Amino acid sequence: MRLIINSGGPQAIDEWRAQFRVFAPELDVAGWQEDVDPSSVDYALVWAPDAGRLATFPNLKLIISAGAGVDHILADPTLPRHLPIARMVTARTQTEMAEFVLTSALMITRGVKRIVDNQSRRHWEIFDSLRVAADVRVGIMGLGHLGVASAQLLSRVGFPVSGWSRGASTLPGLPSYAGQEQFGDFLANTDLLVCLLPATDSTRGILNRDTLSRLPKGASLINAGRGSHMVTQDILDALDSGHLDQAILDVFEQEPLPPESPLWSHPGVIVTPHCAAIPDRKERARHTALLIAANERGEALPNIYDPQRGY
Amino acid sequence: MRLIINSGGPQAIDEWRAQFRVFAPELDVAGWQEDVDPSSVDYALVWAPDAGRLATFPNLKLIISAGAGVDHILADPTLPRHLPIARMVTARTQTEMAEFVLTSALMITRGVKRIVDNQSRRHWEIFDSLRVAADVRVGIMGLGHLGVASAQLLSRVGFPVSGWSRGASTLPGLPSYAGQEQFGDFLANTDLLVCLLPATDSTRGILNRDTLSRLPKGASLINAGRGSHMVTQDILDALDSGHLDQAILDVFEQEPLPPESPLWSHPGVIVTPHCAAIPDRKERARHTALLIAANERGEALPNIYDPQRGY
Ligand SMILES: NC(=O)c1ccc[n+]([C@@H]2O[C@H](COP(=O)([O-])OP(=O)(O)OC[C@H]3O[C@@H](n4cnc5c(N)ncnc54)[C@H](OP(=O)(O)O)[C@@H]3O)[C@@H](O)[C@H]2O)c1
Ligand SMILES: NC(=O)c1ccc[n+]([C@@H]2O[C@H](COP(=O)([O-])OP(=O)(O)OC[C@H]3O[C@@H](n4cnc5c(N)ncnc54)[C@H](OP(=O)(O)O)[C@@H]3O)[C@@H](O)[C@H]2O)c1
Repeated sequence: MRLIINSGGPQAIDEWRAQFRVFAPELDVAGWQEDVDPSSVDYALVWAPDAGRLATFPNLKLIISAGAGVDHILADPTLPRHLPIARMVTARTQTEMAEFVLTSALMITRGVKRIVDNQSRRHWEIFDSLRVAADVRVGIMGLGHLGVASAQLLSRVGFPVSGWSRGASTLPGLPSYAGQEQFGDFLANTDLLVCLLPATDSTRGILNRDTLSRLPKGASLINAGRGSHMVTQDILDALDSGHLDQAILDVFEQEPLPPESPLWSHPGVIVTPHCAAIPDRKERARHTALLIAANERGEALPNIYDPQRGY
Repeated sequence: MRLIINSGGPQAIDEWRAQFRVFAPELDVAGWQEDVDPSSVDYALVWAPDAGRLATFPNLKLIISAGAGVDHILADPTLPRHLPIARMVTARTQTEMAEFVLTSALMITRGVKRIVDNQSRRHWEIFDSLRVAADVRVGIMGLGHLGVASAQLLSRVGFPVSGWSRGASTLPGLPSYAGQEQFGDFLANTDLLVCLLPATDSTRGILNRDTLSRLPKGASLINAGRGSHMVTQDILDALDSGHLDQAILDVFEQEPLPPESPLWSHPGVIVTPHCAAIPDRKERARHTALLIAANERGEALPNIYDPQRGY
């Protein structure tokens, strides 16, 4: 049984092989650049595969995303649409994302960007009073694996948390809003907006001028969903007008964020390099081995991409 | 009944008056710079009073520190030693400090200093794996009001926490170490050392070369106690050798930290301007009003400085 891997580049393949030797010793692991017989490939573990390549494997049974999203796989126009795509969602991903959102929420509550900018100018600013978590109402867009884990951790620390999703989701023990009708109410009660939506046609550009204008003046933003959610110029305008106070952005339409982007130098913005949740190779190899074994036993797999929902 | 206030300077006195009008309307509030009859002063709310002034009030009953420490009051050589000194410890102080320590611990866990330094150079660094709270053993020096509140919050988020104090203190539900004999064990099991000790003769310079060398290689430091705890050159040496990974420092021997301090520009250091816990004037006026009322009723007051213990 052969697994082909496109994640971390050629320099990562030795580590992948070592990990799979532990978790699935029967697997024959090939690197994306290796010259293998296309008909021998049963499984593919990929992040942003070059367009057309997946279609060359006639016996492929399952595509496994190396990350939680699948947008980088769907971007391939010749993708074999009949194949299931499994999203990489592990307990570690949830913990990492929840802690990223908590770290970012606390940094915004305390104005850390201003403090480190002061430090770079050797400037000691005297603060008169401070905000604490209980003063900042957090609103989370997207109540999936990552949104719910983040909401629970923030709530445990003392942030008042609410959530918003398409409809089906609820947030155990916390208020949640559903759909377009309740979007305005959700935003009006949010001092810190956190985006953990998947990239779909209906979430594209959702962090735009209209959405931001419905937040209370002085609200802040964390985007750890996808770059496609943001209308960058609208976010910059809202920051410049003072309507938006701070933003911590982890994902961008183009990654790495190009050096000429005005986001890098905006005093209200912290840019993080798509590092909210990066389960290590050991964790992903373990999870992939479990998925392949379950698939071989004919079991239903968790977190399969649903073209109907779009994520 | 007259209260004289030296906190926030002359520009703060109007706000102090407005706050005390709510919480203790019977009090006659005077600013430190005002020309009052010294014999009319019953109470003093002070932060770093100029030496000699407190001794001029013959009928003073109680000195109330405007902060949690009293070192800035004890520095006055003519301080009337028979008078009780009350420390300002409120529930809000505890929350603010616990959240400061949590924010700092998460920032160190995620390497935020490196991320913001990268941002200032428009550099997108790819991370391969991340640490989470459960990977970082936090050791808290000082298990008083602030140490215990911080330990509890960190533990709720998933950090493994232990504590160290002189002897009497324990940490409910968490391991704690006591005294000099157990100091080495405590340090050997600490990846992130947090100092929340009071400034006394026996804690002066405790964050020195010897203490730091007993931490595991790659450990980090948060100091939110007092500047006098640190031997700055030893901390810089430990950072330069790589034995210490990162430090977040809120307090300094000289404040504001002088522009020529090498701490400002060290890549492993975040300097915060003594802003870990700053209860606002409303909170402090309320607390002061309660202390004065209790004192007038002849009740025992909480958090009185004990010259025997030195804090
Ligand atoms: N920055 C990073 O390092 C990083 C790492 C991992 C993942 N991510 C991103 O995080 C996203 C979320 O991951 P997840 O595992 O939590 O996803 P998930 O479990 O699939 O949950 C998606 C959530 O979004 C909601 N949603 C989808 N479309 C919506 C719409 N049009 N309007 C309102 N709500 C909508 C869904 O609501 P319903 O259930 O009501 O449909 C659901 O609550 C991923 O897709 C990925 O883009 C980022
Ligand atoms: N950065 C800021 O914004 C800020 C704000 C407020 C306060 N602070 C600092 O935080 C300090 C702590 O405040 P707190 O209210 O938590 O104090 P606290 O309630 O008086 O507790 C002091 C703790 O330190 C321990 N301790 C004292 N001397 C010791 C020694 N020589 N060796 C080992 N442990 C020792 C005590 O242990 P035992 O009980 O066993 O004696 C006790 O656990 C204040 O003194 C102040 O310097 C900083």
